[in-house]
Amino acid sequence: MGKVVTSASMSLDGFVAHENNDPGRLFDWYEAGDVEVVTASEPASFHLTPISADYWRSFIGELGCLVVGRLLFDITDGWSGVHPLGVPFVVLTHEAPESWAHAHTGNAHFVTDGIEAAVAKAQELAGDRAVAVAAGTVAGQALAAGLVDEVAIDLVPVVLGQGHRYFAEVDPAAVRLGDPTVVIPSARVTHMVFPVERRAG
Amino acid sequence: MGKVVTSASMSLDGFVAHENNDPGRLFDWYEAGDVEVVTASEPASFHLTPISADYWRSFIGELGCLVVGRLLFDITDGWSGVHPLGVPFVVLTHEAPESWAHAHTGNAHFVTDGIEAAVAKAQELAGDRAVAVAAGTVAGQALAAGLVDEVAIDLVPVVLGQGHRYFAEVDPAAVRLGDPTVVIPSARVTHMVFPVERRAG
Repeated sequence: MGKVVTSASMSLDGFVAHENNDPGRLFDWYEAGDVEVVTASEPASFHLTPISADYWRSFIGELGCLVVGRLLFDITDGWSGVHPLGVPFVVLTHEAPESWAHAHTGNAHFVTDGIEAAVAKAQELAGDRAVAVAAGTVAGQALAAGLVDEVAIDLVPVVLGQGHRYFAEVDPAAVRLGDPTVVIPSARVTHMVFPVERRAG
Repeated sequence: MGKVVTSASMSLDGFVAHENNDPGRLFDWYEAGDVEVVTASEPASFHLTPISADYWRSFIGELGCLVVGRLLFDITDGWSGVHPLGVPFVVLTHEAPESWAHAHTGNAHFVTDGIEAAVAKAQELAGDRAVAVAAGTVAGQALAAGLVDEVAIDLVPVVLGQGHRYFAEVDPAAVRLGDPTVVIPSARVTHMVFPVERRAG
């Protein structure tokens, strides 16, 4: 089974979006360079620095499946069935939609019985590849349940003041992180990866 | 005149202490190595990694004065008149204490007419050296007033969940930070320094 990571662009004060879900300047690094990265759906491409492009390709190269919450699914209409990263995605929800216009793509999988089941389904779909859990409530639940191996943060030099937090609904005492295994400064972002330390026993 | 910096150890979610002012595990890096650093008052010394010790000495080597809030002054009783960093400190307060047991040390300077005056007094005392403004409310006021040249963050891989924020009372729109000029991973901390971008005009 592949590893489970959480990943998001985060402000210096710990937010992944404004309250209205607008990412503000958190995504500036997606257009901070000249290296074109083609995606599987809209936006069709973005433009990274060579350093960020290397990090990005390494991350995407081992990615097999995403786990997202119902809010993100609804906001994006499930990316019309094709996520920009080109991988299938598991939607953690209380109730699967009865009919969805893009269900025929086969990329969306709805799980209604909790975060453990959602991550298990994603790992089944990912095989030996990694599962990425979207930051926010879903990542908080996964961290609290001890399901996460690595916390990836694209740290952006902005202050949001308030908004949606990366570490929402997390009991801090339940999360012990090690020193970062990745620290890559780039333009408008520093890519960092922190291993989650497993509790003894 | 020397530059003005804010500096603090900060959790991944943006806090510099718990609500009860306990720093929790934010200061673990002060005892994460074997290099003894001697201070001017209690604690008499701490023990850094070689990497953190180099960064520390560079920071301290150019430091001339501190600006702190009244809360920190009261909690520490003004470090009994001698700050561990061995520099004078300006206390921003509504009212200077009428008598203070350690006033004879001459290291504490009380300013009652606002953050601009406090930073100006500190720069006068620091000469060509840097002024460091304590994180939290005072740093927030200094940032908002456009008085800060650099934001130094000792980023610690812990999650606090709640507490005192590094960027308290800051209007995010008033703060524009550049890419970090310093990114130094060490044990239990990554030392980072972000320049404050001046607004045009």
